[in-house]
Amino acid sequence: MDERHVFIISDRTGITAETLSHSLLTQFPSIRFVTIALPFVDTVAKVDDAIRQIDKIARQSNGKPLVFTTFVDDEHRQQLMSANGVFFDFFDTFIGPLEREFKIESSHSAGRTHGMVDVARYTSRISAVNFSVQCDDGIHTGDYDRAVLVLLGVSRSGKTPTCLYLALHFGIYAANYPLTEEDFAFDDFASALRMNRGKLFGLTIDPIRLQQIRQERRRDGRYSQLRQCRYEVAQAEALYRRQGIPYIDATSMSIEEISTTVIHRMKLHRDPY
Amino acid sequence: MDERHVFIISDRTGITAETLSHSLLTQFPSIRFVTIALPFVDTVAKVDDAIRQIDKIARQSNGKPLVFTTFVDDEHRQQLMSANGVFFDFFDTFIGPLEREFKIESSHSAGRTHGMVDVARYTSRISAVNFSVQCDDGIHTGDYDRAVLVLLGVSRSGKTPTCLYLALHFGIYAANYPLTEEDFAFDDFASALRMNRGKLFGLTIDPIRLQQIRQERRRDGRYSQLRQCRYEVAQAEALYRRQGIPYIDATSMSIEEISTTVIHRMKLHRDPY
Repeated sequence: MDERHVFIISDRTGITAETLSHSLLTQFPSIRFVTIALPFVDTVAKVDDAIRQIDKIARQSNGKPLVFTTFVDDEHRQQLMSANGVFFDFFDTFIGPLEREFKIESSHSAGRTHGMVDVARYTSRISAVNFSVQCDDGIHTGDYDRAVLVLLGVSRSGKTPTCLYLALHFGIYAANYPLTEEDFAFDDFASALRMNRGKLFGLTIDPIRLQQIRQERRRDGRYSQLRQCRYEVAQAEALYRRQGIPYIDATSMSIEEISTTVIHRMKLHRDPY
Repeated sequence: MDERHVFIISDRTGITAETLSHSLLTQFPSIRFVTIALPFVDTVAKVDDAIRQIDKIARQSNGKPLVFTTFVDDEHRQQLMSANGVFFDFFDTFIGPLEREFKIESSHSAGRTHGMVDVARYTSRISAVNFSVQCDDGIHTGDYDRAVLVLLGVSRSGKTPTCLYLALHFGIYAANYPLTEEDFAFDDFASALRMNRGKLFGLTIDPIRLQQIRQERRRDGRYSQLRQCRYEVAQAEALYRRQGIPYIDATSMSIEEISTTVIHRMKLHRDPY
């Protein structure tokens, strides 16, 4: 397999550069990429050090290293470009066209994306994260009035990671409630759910996949028997249909895909971070 | 304040396009951006609908809407470009240069970034998330052998969101342990921590900021008194120094900045998602 070195270099966290390079490089599955991240490269000395590292790799390998950058400081970016790499600067590529479109200059200030620029906005995001931890797995149902979403599903159907992702990435207050046999036994369900009907969204999952996931957690007992998984999934889906709760089959969906779908279907307001 | 409409359109989640546009547009703080996200636009009919929405906004507002896209399907992307917007296609801009550099074609397959391409890798990420929830706030210290990081800090210093972010974004197994007066009382500390010394990293915070955060949670009592906050922070910092535990002041750092710094300082292996 071909191998290429990839540098992620930024005067801030480099998270934007890393996210974007990851998106691009996954389109080349036949190459193995070795990533070296250098965040907070914000002095001439640190840029010099980065240049040395790039040049060293360039001498040792076939093909120049790829260098994905997000520099807010133009001088540091210019300095870095003397290194022997193939450069992709996300800001440099798009900020110019945007400045021409808006007919104003960009602020060129660092840390605007992943720094703490707006304390109130940041505090609200952290509150959302704490809320989702607090209201994980059906606890504190009394706080559901603060939620904008209550995710339902049987145990291990993907509720917890989805709620945490929604909180961290979009600042959304999401609680989750595990459906158990008690919930299926009644035609109606828990009052906390009844009182928040418009916030309910269900996840379902292929029983065979559910069994695999449950077996990793607890190999024995009824919990991870296929028969039990089939029963719970069928009951959950019947409940969603009976109560008119929107739901999706999350079997082959990632957290990002589940989250995006839920936001879209429930028309949730979100603040991307 | 000037206002501009921004469309995020993708045949998948659009999370990459949104990340990029968010990074870029935060550089123009004098403009208010109104974002409309249209994920999963993967049929001719859905593209037509997107075109109608863009054209409608273009007629109603000053300045064309900005359209940030990540289409894996070239035909849908071409179709969309008949709309009356200013287009920024992330893949289109960078994939060409990368293909020329690698001398191979990209896979042009959708869902590689935020979809479930590699089930084993995805399962490991979900396990990391479950681990961080399971080992939140000093519970299950017996599982610290599975952690690669144990984050220390007084209550409300930012441990939980950081650990969750590390798990979700980088698949890192991170536990967190709240330092309380009991930990300060001894010259040595809990055996679970002692046995995992190399994994320890401390957070500290300005006592005044800590008091603000704590007051939002619980207004009364010793917990949110400035004197108590000062005492705990001083004791925690003394502990870090005494035990030689690396630590940072996270007062004005975002989750992303804390996470990046911890990864960098502790040289943690990570898989970006």
